[in-house]
Amino acid sequence: MNVPPSLERLVQELARLPGIGTKTAQRLAFSILRNESARAQNLARAIVDVKEKIRFCSRCFAYAEQELCTICQNPRRDDRVICVVEQPNDVYVIERSGVFQGRYHVLLGTISPLDGVGPEQLKIRELQSRLEEHPVDELIIATNPSIPGEATALHLSRVLDSKVARITRLARGLPVGAHLEYTDDVTLNQAFAGRQNF
Amino acid sequence: MNVPPSLERLVQELARLPGIGTKTAQRLAFSILRNESARAQNLARAIVDVKEKIRFCSRCFAYAEQELCTICQNPRRDDRVICVVEQPNDVYVIERSGVFQGRYHVLLGTISPLDGVGPEQLKIRELQSRLEEHPVDELIIATNPSIPGEATALHLSRVLDSKVARITRLARGLPVGAHLEYTDDVTLNQAFAGRQNF
Repeated sequence: MNVPPSLERLVQELARLPGIGTKTAQRLAFSILRNESARAQNLARAIVDVKEKIRFCSRCFAYAEQELCTICQNPRRDDRVICVVEQPNDVYVIERSGVFQGRYHVLLGTISPLDGVGPEQLKIRELQSRLEEHPVDELIIATNPSIPGEATALHLSRVLDSKVARITRLARGLPVGAHLEYTDDVTLNQAFAGRQNF
Repeated sequence: MNVPPSLERLVQELARLPGIGTKTAQRLAFSILRNESARAQNLARAIVDVKEKIRFCSRCFAYAEQELCTICQNPRRDDRVICVVEQPNDVYVIERSGVFQGRYHVLLGTISPLDGVGPEQLKIRELQSRLEEHPVDELIIATNPSIPGEATALHLSRVLDSKVARITRLARGLPVGAHLEYTDDVTLNQAFAGRQNF
């Protein structure tokens, strides 16, 4: 390929991002090249900035630019409920839906013995101290419905049982728009087990 | 959304790229955030570099880092054939296929009266001077099979008719893997008109 070296390098760097193949990376690189310099500068600065400015919130471990994240800083959030999630991005998924008004706690991972991740590597001790300092009425465990997510949820429900009045987890069942025909057995099983009165 | 401002800004900048929606931009931003700083720095530098270093080749108007692009600099390319394309990226698509060993000429656009682009705005005069200085045996017009592409090809074939021995254009017909059932009428028409002996 007779691509200029700097263009080739940009394509390679873009292709390292998840879900971006070589062809998409080329399309993006050509677009960056065609746009005005100011836009390319802005993009480059935004990339450097995000790495320099963002750290984990010292209380809930979501992303933050200051000591505490904007959610922990917000006095209007409900202090009586904490939602436990695996990763910082999970916070933004739930925030986008607007369904939850309480506080968060990010574990920064899941228990996964195969990868050498035990409970000590997660932010569970920090959650325990939070609960001791400021008791809550309910702890919602919103780990993913996967094997490591379920294992982590189970572990949490055991170690925190004595510390919280109520520990819940997100409902399992049929997602909106699903077809019974294409639903896997485990989901169908959970939808039956969790069936509700009209 | 309670996303830290620098993260929000990165998402916005990424979402301005073609084919990148907000969700993909978020996924990419989270990935950049999770990766080591060195990778983010490399990506940012590659973006700035590409805008600073790349310009148009002064002979063929493909992308170049020096006065001439690597193809124009290469003494082993066939000087007797020039392939005319619309945009610099078209050069790399043809190069990737390895099907062509001659030189290129990039028009940097197509004739499009609705957008106010006439023949004077394209690099046609430059092509004419190239042909006068170094006559070629064949000019292959590889503009897109679209209305502006065809109009440009027609214009070129007229104004250059007296200057080149042979002007050709890429074959029209069924692409590999196509189904007759789903082929549009124009393509089918061209496939019949251009039918070849076994």
